[in-house]
Amino acid sequence: MLDKVLNARSVAIIGASKNKTKRGYQAIKTLLADGYEGEIYPVNPNEDMILGIRCHKDITLIKDPVDLALITTPARTIPDILRKCGEKKVAGAVIIAGGFRELGLKGKELEREVVAVAKQTGVRLIGPNTSGMINLKSNMNLVGIQNAPKGNIALLCQSGNMALTLITEATIRKQEGFTYYVGVGNESDIKFHEYLEFLRNDPDTKSILMYVEGMSEGRKFLQEAYKTSIKKPIVLLKSGRSATGKKSAGSHTGSLAGMSEVAKSAYERTGIVVIENSDELFPVATTLSNQPPINNKSIAILADGGGHATIAADLLTDYGILLPELSDKTKNNLRKLLPDAASVVNPVDVAGGTDANPGLFADCAKIILKDPSVGGLLVVGLFGGYGIRFDDSLAIGEEAAAHRMGAMVRRKNKPIIVHSLYSSYESHALDLLRHYDIPVHDSLDISCKCVASLCKYGSYLKSYHAKTNFVFNWRSKAKPEGNQIINNALKEGRHVLLENEAKELIKLHGAPTSVGQVARSEDEAWQIAEKIKENVVLKIVSPDILHKSDACGVKLNLKSELEVRKAYCQIIKNAIAYNSEADIRGVLVSPMAQKGLEIIIGTKIDEQFGPVIMYGLGGIMVEIMKDVTFWVLPVSPTSCKKMLEDTRSSILLEGVRGQKGYDKKSLRRLIAMCSELIEAYPEIEEMDLNPIILYEKGLDVVDARIILKK
Amino acid sequence: MLDKVLNARSVAIIGASKNKTKRGYQAIKTLLADGYEGEIYPVNPNEDMILGIRCHKDITLIKDPVDLALITTPARTIPDILRKCGEKKVAGAVIIAGGFRELGLKGKELEREVVAVAKQTGVRLIGPNTSGMINLKSNMNLVGIQNAPKGNIALLCQSGNMALTLITEATIRKQEGFTYYVGVGNESDIKFHEYLEFLRNDPDTKSILMYVEGMSEGRKFLQEAYKTSIKKPIVLLKSGRSATGKKSAGSHTGSLAGMSEVAKSAYERTGIVVIENSDELFPVATTLSNQPPINNKSIAILADGGGHATIAADLLTDYGILLPELSDKTKNNLRKLLPDAASVVNPVDVAGGTDANPGLFADCAKIILKDPSVGGLLVVGLFGGYGIRFDDSLAIGEEAAAHRMGAMVRRKNKPIIVHSLYSSYESHALDLLRHYDIPVHDSLDISCKCVASLCKYGSYLKSYHAKTNFVFNWRSKAKPEGNQIINNALKEGRHVLLENEAKELIKLHGAPTSVGQVARSEDEAWQIAEKIKENVVLKIVSPDILHKSDACGVKLNLKSELEVRKAYCQIIKNAIAYNSEADIRGVLVSPMAQKGLEIIIGTKIDEQFGPVIMYGLGGIMVEIMKDVTFWVLPVSPTSCKKMLEDTRSSILLEGVRGQKGYDKKSLRRLIAMCSELIEAYPEIEEMDLNPIILYEKGLDVVDARIILKK
Repeated sequence: MLDKVLNARSVAIIGASKNKTKRGYQAIKTLLADGYEGEIYPVNPNEDMILGIRCHKDITLIKDPVDLALITTPARTIPDILRKCGEKKVAGAVIIAGGFRELGLKGKELEREVVAVAKQTGVRLIGPNTSGMINLKSNMNLVGIQNAPKGNIALLCQSGNMALTLITEATIRKQEGFTYYVGVGNESDIKFHEYLEFLRNDPDTKSILMYVEGMSEGRKFLQEAYKTSIKKPIVLLKSGRSATGKKSAGSHTGSLAGMSEVAKSAYERTGIVVIENSDELFPVATTLSNQPPINNKSIAILADGGGHATIAADLLTDYGILLPELSDKTKNNLRKLLPDAASVVNPVDVAGGTDANPGLFADCAKIILKDPSVGGLLVVGLFGGYGIRFDDSLAIGEEAAAHRMGAMVRRKNKPIIVHSLYSSYESHALDLLRHYDIPVHDSLDISCKCVASLCKYGSYLKSYHAKTNFVFNWRSKAKPEGNQIINNALKEGRHVLLENEAKELIKLHGAPTSVGQVARSEDEAWQIAEKIKENVVLKIVSPDILHKSDACGVKLNLKSELEVRKAYCQIIKNAIAYNSEADIRGVLVSPMAQKGLEIIIGTKIDEQFGPVIMYGLGGIMVEIMKDVTFWVLPVSPTSCKKMLEDTRSSILLEGVRGQKGYDKKSLRRLIAMCSELIEAYPEIEEMDLNPIILYEKGLDVVDARIILKK
Repeated sequence: MLDKVLNARSVAIIGASKNKTKRGYQAIKTLLADGYEGEIYPVNPNEDMILGIRCHKDITLIKDPVDLALITTPARTIPDILRKCGEKKVAGAVIIAGGFRELGLKGKELEREVVAVAKQTGVRLIGPNTSGMINLKSNMNLVGIQNAPKGNIALLCQSGNMALTLITEATIRKQEGFTYYVGVGNESDIKFHEYLEFLRNDPDTKSILMYVEGMSEGRKFLQEAYKTSIKKPIVLLKSGRSATGKKSAGSHTGSLAGMSEVAKSAYERTGIVVIENSDELFPVATTLSNQPPINNKSIAILADGGGHATIAADLLTDYGILLPELSDKTKNNLRKLLPDAASVVNPVDVAGGTDANPGLFADCAKIILKDPSVGGLLVVGLFGGYGIRFDDSLAIGEEAAAHRMGAMVRRKNKPIIVHSLYSSYESHALDLLRHYDIPVHDSLDISCKCVASLCKYGSYLKSYHAKTNFVFNWRSKAKPEGNQIINNALKEGRHVLLENEAKELIKLHGAPTSVGQVARSEDEAWQIAEKIKENVVLKIVSPDILHKSDACGVKLNLKSELEVRKAYCQIIKNAIAYNSEADIRGVLVSPMAQKGLEIIIGTKIDEQFGPVIMYGLGGIMVEIMKDVTFWVLPVSPTSCKKMLEDTRSSILLEGVRGQKGYDKKSLRRLIAMCSELIEAYPEIEEMDLNPIILYEKGLDVVDARIILKK
């Protein structure tokens, strides 16, 4: 559907100009300079010819079909122009102008109008507030950046400056370039996920590089990312963490985890390689575009002397990458090849001989890549500089080695990544490596990050079958009794389920919880308590009292008749004192939970991603250590395992200080049940199971709170 | 003392050669090529002339004085050659050869011999196992790297490859270079701290860049670093974390914190700027060499369009740097200058106008740097490229702006750091900034790291008065009664103090602890317990039972006579069952501590740094969350505050969930007491105060264990 927009075969420049400083002039000049393969139609009511091309007074006057309009005029002119574009049946428009939602209320209104016109007319919009777009395959360059290098990376970018940075980097490195660049701008019509869908099916795009500041439809994006990253890697940097942090500091859940953490964990679950440092964006994208992923998280390092190998080993270890021990066979073969002083353990170090011999790199690489425990090879240090440091005879050997390594990658389907001090020098050997699409970096840190990214992507592909596609099957698992509980509350005009209702609902879906019974008198309270045959808890039941403890509406660990009766009366008294208007439904009498490990699970609706779930160990761990994890729902029982591992304190589940471990299986099942519940009842806005007491066997949801959407 | 070595005015090349592939040829050639200002004396028994210089058969035959010998011969020849050097009264020798301790036992022995000869003869050694050294001031280049750029950074490096990397980077960047390069090698004679002392007093060295793999005298290094960093910044990368991690995994304390964390915290306490990524080493060193430090942790960002500013704000926030709000005056002045759509809050964004105007950068910088809340300025994005992207008229304006910004830094004593996309292009404006020593980077990440480093160094200088110099005044605070306790144990041949002894010792120095009394019979136990008038604890006292719980030698919370008598008998029986040979001294009867917050403090002797102290919250926080901090002793009462802040769980000290806070003052005093104790009694090897119970007011050291050195 976006094909006609992004692969347009004809472009109208609305706002075309003879004034060299105007965008409407530069755009035509760039299209001509870059050699756009399609038709160019300048549109300006006051001109006849611009840059030798006939100018039309109005887009509707163009006889031939027009696929795309580039609109360079100011914000206020856009709605009318779009209407004309609709008349002409233009597929899409790129709106350069700023001055929309980013300028406050008035701009927001104008943007809303623009989007409404687009919907009416069927014209799809790129932007507004964008630097434009480039299709490098047809040389359709609608941005001021000339001569952007061609290649196999598609670039989706929410900052013109960052696009310029990445394109400049590609130009300087000369290793890889782009298929498309889209300045996504305000993302007011075409969304990130639509571009992703298009790029997934573009045969020339091998990886997708994204710079995101804000995203409006997070869940749809996750769904498309899930479908895309199995076919081609996505590399993404999300900025604006500090601003987001400030904004969300108000909300309670937000203060536990900046929403950027929610986003990061969700992105990674769809296979996206999330990048933190902007320097790494382009190198990682080229690496993932051109090198096979590593599926066993294992790498060998090949060095010429210490220092670099030591630093690389540190970094890779920090990234959780393994440096496996080489097999005896590998070590023996290396030993035959290398001088005595060389190291044949991983990192392998060719140094120690008297003669510099770059051919050793290819010989060693061949042996090392044969080792089944090795997933890929990182060459660090001086390769590429032998011809520079020594003489031409070495340069020839070095080039031959480069040829051989290039061929090896293709044959073995294991990647080689090269760090070279001589990356920015003229080196034929390094040019040859680049020719074989082997990444060559002058930064050791970035080289290691590229290795780590190949491992991350490889691990994702390996476990793809266990991933969620982030699609909800709303109501599919709802139960009639559950619907009834919710409808009862809604009928009463309530948006809060009473504790007993919430517990009944989760029990219905298999959560272990003692609901208890609601007593409406002192006598009834004792009758219920007597039957329970354990110590009991009494809690106020009132739709008007959300935080029961605040109203002194909870009495724990009651045993005797006297205690229960006294507690009942006190709770009712306290509730009236707390809120004399409160609709008091009675007092919930339930058995007192045994001691165990306190867990908290909650769900809420995130603005960007929809339903998310929070998990953490109760008490200090959540409140003080903020040791919680947020995941976008749904979560499968398999992925619950990973979720538990996300919190540092989850190690307590294993049992410590001589204790037995806790029932992780029940806990995972409970998390999966929460996921199911949210999917079953879209009415639910928020759910809090707090505390949950986890035992060696089983668990008990001691308190449950469910809030419905208004 | 190292002056004659590092500033040698004459060098003998021992192993001089006519063979072009030999180090002994290359060294002379490099000295000639670089234009060494001193005398060169080739030494080779079989040659008369090398490269046109008269060759001596033996170093002792040289008539004039020789300051330094460069020895290029193999390891086994070194001791004899050193003896001759001694005879000639050479001040120092650079030993290139490897084949010493790094090759195992035999090499270790040879190294020991070499060091012994050096000590006898008074010849100081650089290396062995080094790439050599360069004094760039006198062009004394004893390394193969020609044309290393001159400048004001001294480089101490434990890897020839890393030296090559850093020198290559300096060459490519053309911004800064070196005064000295020393390949420290095996550090077997001249140690890191001696080089530091020398460089501290070198007037041409403005900063010291260090790459360290291992360091033999950590404490002396800290002492010298403390004295140095107040005068000039030290930037350090320590590698080998992963290897260290593996090695230290065996020891218990080691498994709590990799020793690299101990090192890092200690380095930072001496003002060293510790770097994690090798890419950052050189840029941070040049920045600290040439820019004034920031002492209020506050920076303003100046950008041309979004993207870069957003990313920079994220990174700086991650580093703990503040982006202060600008004063109304500043904002008003900026508003007058900038187009309406520009942002005058921090980050300031000049974009939004129709005309590109690089002069705005200098105008804005001037206004922003006047704001007292701003400690420095980070310019991000496109500055330096206006002349490239647009036309020459803009280039002129851009150069003028660069001039003005350069002058501003000098006048205001506030730094400007520039990130520019055009850093690797030909840009006069950027060259001008460089001329004014303003750092220009193409990496946004590294630019932010440079800002963070200026803040870190500035904060250190500001609080320098409160820092420790890491010097121990051994025994200065010992007390006669304390010496007696220790001597009693040693006289008995014991290396473990009994619990009551350990508690008496710490009580002597002011630690709040109830020592209790040792009972030698059931009757005596009850007599003591009766007097205490609280519940009591009984614990076995035996030099042969270190872990009392393992021997079931502890009974808690005893009340009645029956309980106390039963407990006494049981403890004695258990102790005998545990170790029938054990020397049982009785049972310690002490009051049962009230409930409070559990704290652990321990000290041990670190191989590299000597006495270190560990602090953490007890129970789960230490054992499961590994939430502890290690500091090199001594610690001052002031720095204890920072130490407490080092653990995440210390937030519990403030009081949470409606509780009152705990007595941090007493805790700090206790830590200072531990520091004093270790200084007072050098006999102590290890001390464990575990648990300490902390209260709203006061604390109680419940158990104490002190082990003496053997």
